[in-house]
Amino acid sequence: MPEAKSKPSAAKPTKAAATQNLPATKARKGEAGSRAESPVSELLSIGETEPIAPEASSFVFEDIQPSVDGGLFAVKREVGDLLEVSADIWLYGHEKYTCWFEWRREGGQWARLPLEKGENDRFLGSVALTEVGLFEFRVGGTWEKTRLESASPIYDVVVDPVIARFGAWYEMWPRSQGTDPSKSGTWDDCIARLPEIAAMGFQVLYVPPVHPIGKTNRKGKNNSLKALPGEPGCPYAIGNELGGHDAVDPDLGSMADFERFIAACHEHRMQVALDIALNASPDHPYAKDHPDWFYREPDGTIKYAENPPKKYEDIYAFHYYGPDAEAMWREILRIHLFWVEKGIRIFRVDNPHTKPFGLWQWLIREVKKRCPDAVFLSEAFTRPKLMKRLAKIGFQQSYTYFVWREKAAELREYLEEITAKPVSEYMRGNFFTNTPDINPHHCQDHGRPAFLVRTALAALLCPSWGMYNGWELCEATPVPGKEEYLNSEKYQYHAWDWNRPGNIKDWIRTLNEIRNNHPALQETHNIRFLDCTDPELLAFVRVLGEDRLLCVINCDPTRAREGYIDAPWTDLGISWAPYPVTDLVTKERWTWNAGSNWVRLDPAVCPAHVLKIG
Amino acid sequence: MPEAKSKPSAAKPTKAAATQNLPATKARKGEAGSRAESPVSELLSIGETEPIAPEASSFVFEDIQPSVDGGLFAVKREVGDLLEVSADIWLYGHEKYTCWFEWRREGGQWARLPLEKGENDRFLGSVALTEVGLFEFRVGGTWEKTRLESASPIYDVVVDPVIARFGAWYEMWPRSQGTDPSKSGTWDDCIARLPEIAAMGFQVLYVPPVHPIGKTNRKGKNNSLKALPGEPGCPYAIGNELGGHDAVDPDLGSMADFERFIAACHEHRMQVALDIALNASPDHPYAKDHPDWFYREPDGTIKYAENPPKKYEDIYAFHYYGPDAEAMWREILRIHLFWVEKGIRIFRVDNPHTKPFGLWQWLIREVKKRCPDAVFLSEAFTRPKLMKRLAKIGFQQSYTYFVWREKAAELREYLEEITAKPVSEYMRGNFFTNTPDINPHHCQDHGRPAFLVRTALAALLCPSWGMYNGWELCEATPVPGKEEYLNSEKYQYHAWDWNRPGNIKDWIRTLNEIRNNHPALQETHNIRFLDCTDPELLAFVRVLGEDRLLCVINCDPTRAREGYIDAPWTDLGISWAPYPVTDLVTKERWTWNAGSNWVRLDPAVCPAHVLKIG
Repeated sequence: MPEAKSKPSAAKPTKAAATQNLPATKARKGEAGSRAESPVSELLSIGETEPIAPEASSFVFEDIQPSVDGGLFAVKREVGDLLEVSADIWLYGHEKYTCWFEWRREGGQWARLPLEKGENDRFLGSVALTEVGLFEFRVGGTWEKTRLESASPIYDVVVDPVIARFGAWYEMWPRSQGTDPSKSGTWDDCIARLPEIAAMGFQVLYVPPVHPIGKTNRKGKNNSLKALPGEPGCPYAIGNELGGHDAVDPDLGSMADFERFIAACHEHRMQVALDIALNASPDHPYAKDHPDWFYREPDGTIKYAENPPKKYEDIYAFHYYGPDAEAMWREILRIHLFWVEKGIRIFRVDNPHTKPFGLWQWLIREVKKRCPDAVFLSEAFTRPKLMKRLAKIGFQQSYTYFVWREKAAELREYLEEITAKPVSEYMRGNFFTNTPDINPHHCQDHGRPAFLVRTALAALLCPSWGMYNGWELCEATPVPGKEEYLNSEKYQYHAWDWNRPGNIKDWIRTLNEIRNNHPALQETHNIRFLDCTDPELLAFVRVLGEDRLLCVINCDPTRAREGYIDAPWTDLGISWAPYPVTDLVTKERWTWNAGSNWVRLDPAVCPAHVLKIG
Repeated sequence: MPEAKSKPSAAKPTKAAATQNLPATKARKGEAGSRAESPVSELLSIGETEPIAPEASSFVFEDIQPSVDGGLFAVKREVGDLLEVSADIWLYGHEKYTCWFEWRREGGQWARLPLEKGENDRFLGSVALTEVGLFEFRVGGTWEKTRLESASPIYDVVVDPVIARFGAWYEMWPRSQGTDPSKSGTWDDCIARLPEIAAMGFQVLYVPPVHPIGKTNRKGKNNSLKALPGEPGCPYAIGNELGGHDAVDPDLGSMADFERFIAACHEHRMQVALDIALNASPDHPYAKDHPDWFYREPDGTIKYAENPPKKYEDIYAFHYYGPDAEAMWREILRIHLFWVEKGIRIFRVDNPHTKPFGLWQWLIREVKKRCPDAVFLSEAFTRPKLMKRLAKIGFQQSYTYFVWREKAAELREYLEEITAKPVSEYMRGNFFTNTPDINPHHCQDHGRPAFLVRTALAALLCPSWGMYNGWELCEATPVPGKEEYLNSEKYQYHAWDWNRPGNIKDWIRTLNEIRNNHPALQETHNIRFLDCTDPELLAFVRVLGEDRLLCVINCDPTRAREGYIDAPWTDLGISWAPYPVTDLVTKERWTWNAGSNWVRLDPAVCPAHVLKIG
């Protein structure tokens, strides 16, 4: 059986050259019925033709699912899923045939499984996804009369770990986890924070770059161009004489200390996500050892990185197609495998959209081949098509536009877009409420109620959500007029009072506990929005098996809102009403009716109902 | 520049084998946050990797239009069109680049044309289609800084003659064009009919198979299994001792007589469409000279053809993958080129769905390479996906389900389906009102008004429409209980009174004249349906430039109907009302208002308004 392959990087063969050079016939334009001129005597000496179609082409395979862009990219699934395969398959005429599909791990042996006939020439089958890894399938048919077999091209499926779909992420700034605001915290300070973070119900602990920080052009407080003596600089300016991407900033501790931190996270049943920033400060060992790895200006000096309108005067940009490109790409791969070997499985990639996409496609694949449970998160706040492309080429998760979807209608539209096919076949959103670069204006303007609302939205709308430390303290002091944090720990030492009055740690704990106990909130494809008479009450149901949840969130942090919701009893598979519901937040029990039910939510008190049905 | 090609018959290359055989990591199912096991020391010896992505892959090309199935099949256009090309194109980061597309006739030289930047990373350009033929395009980009160029795979465009899109077809049964019902008509009888047919405004004259007819198991009247002496048999049972697919039935005349008939059609500005039936009677020369070209039963006898539930006891089915397949396919090609050489440009193919689709894809392409203005019509009343597949693989036109769409709502839904992308990029419907095999029950039940209604629907809804002779006489006498004609000329001699009372020749002439004078009716993409208060009044607008038509058709042949229609003045580009309209059928002039306008149509009198606006 020929191994026909669909793959984005495979060059498609050229078409056979036409063998006869006929003059163009000159049909008179626009006149139906007029006679066209053709050369007469040449036609009947047929000469060469293209090869006749092979008999296997009598089988037609169309609309093979699941697939992305007709097989150019892999679909994404998680271990434990059931993969449902389907295709339109037929032979010409009335010939009898059976259909099947084949499944294998890349490099493995095909196993054949049945496809059952559905309606309208469509065939369906399924296979349980019991292991992470890179897999392939194809569909095929067997002509009963002749025993001729034919198969489709091959389609890719990447089976990721469950954490790729579901988890709550806590972004922790390591040097700020101590108690002295004038110096760096240590890995032991970070370890001491873990019980509280784990108790809030998080599964991933994400840290920004942990490497030695550059000194040349080191940035100072509030992104000033020059650091004062003693200022720590920005961790994204990676590298100094003490090392680069495979070293740890000694101010935080030793490599062994960092490894203890990773182990401690694992003991708390949390994974560590490492930040991958493909930059280098001018002091990075690469600048001395591999000057060819950097862009040069026409006058030979190395070019500084930028992400317009931002300029990063403290870092150089890599040159991915310099004279030593292959060695450089292998080094990037080695860095990732180095940290995998230390126990890291999750990489949050900084600004992937400013690097060639071919790099990520290659890198993610090479890492996944060696470490199938690796997870890559794309931090690319860029144009929609580029964001989707990064997901297609391999990123397991993507930051989204969630922060800028505030109205209930906007959120509904956005969720419907990203949970529908084909986007949902290749892209998994992670709803971060804030980042070190994003201090949302709704938090600046509306304070604690906004934090309550936005946490509920993130945690209940998306199986993966995250927050950057300080969020639980309702920290929102801005650089005036910007969505930036004032005196950001990006540029200076800091310490937090994790018990600051007004904190929302209980709310976060409550929401994460509900998520962790309810499979319906751990999926993406099962959200259905309901209409409500108040336009800012966002109502939706999420069902998985017997787990039925109806959520209502007041998206407006400024005031209480109330209205009527039509609950879709029949769609929920419930045939009788009234029906008992339990509010998982307050533990109250009510009875809901078929038809309209009234809700009221005050964001200053509690912005969300999470009702378990039954 | 690499010539990457997308083409359905090209095998896609296999994926590079994974070079490391790593044990599967065992993530515990369903537990987010748990630690995965990985082999430790092996990871850092990277070993082989796949090649790094080429620099040209930094350019991303997505959603290239126009295309079918991501480039697997050609799109269809007609000479005189403007081809609009567009694509999403970008580079990573903020690099500056320009975009272009290239265009060529297959086998020719690329010509580069500009793409202009639109919104949201989309680029647009166009090229005038001044010649028929097989063409190709691809999109590309040039990186300003490095002058690096990259191009997409190649996409196919088949530029057909205008007759592929627009024309009225008259199906004439040659041996019935005389005046004596006891014997065959001749080509001279057919020539004598041409002025009347041309005067009715037809562009295509379609004839069933014109070849010598088999004698063995010849069918008799009303499809009886045995013909009586003197009965002519069915023309689809092709071939006897006087010849096969490249011969003419001597009862009709000589080859020279047939050539005179073709020339006479051309003088009347009509093209001849020939019927291609890939069958052979047991008497066909092929049965003696090429027995390997036929299917054999296990006992060695040649198998009869069938199209279940129909059995064709008078014909053998070809075997397309026998031991002499290449010679047989070349002969099929030779037959087509033989008739092209005689002046035939249009082939109506009988039951293509009972032959391997690979045959048609190959054949149509080989004919079009040598005769770019050839047109193939698919007569495949089969399942929807198969019908569409035949269009994708090359048929210029397709019979449709039009006959079985009777209610206004059904017609609207069907038209919206087939005029929308992607179907409209590869499929052109031809709305035949009847065929020798289809005597519609609505004609049987409702008589002349049904003929008026159905002609109006076909002629006004679709730029290509056709009728089988007898339609103009409102012939509908059925084989009882079937959609078949009683005493069908398929199986016996016949003569018609072309001036039979009650004929609808004037109505046909009126409709064809309107079509021939109004470009808005010669397109497919420009139909917009309107709502009407009566559910069986089908109302729609068709606009092309300044040609604005509003049509209303009463789909119900049993009674007059009336109602209100909202006319979309603003959508028609008209900003003022009331507006004068001219009824192109009756020549009356009225004034229509913005908002609702009342219509009434009696199908027994005149079932359609065709209102020219302005």
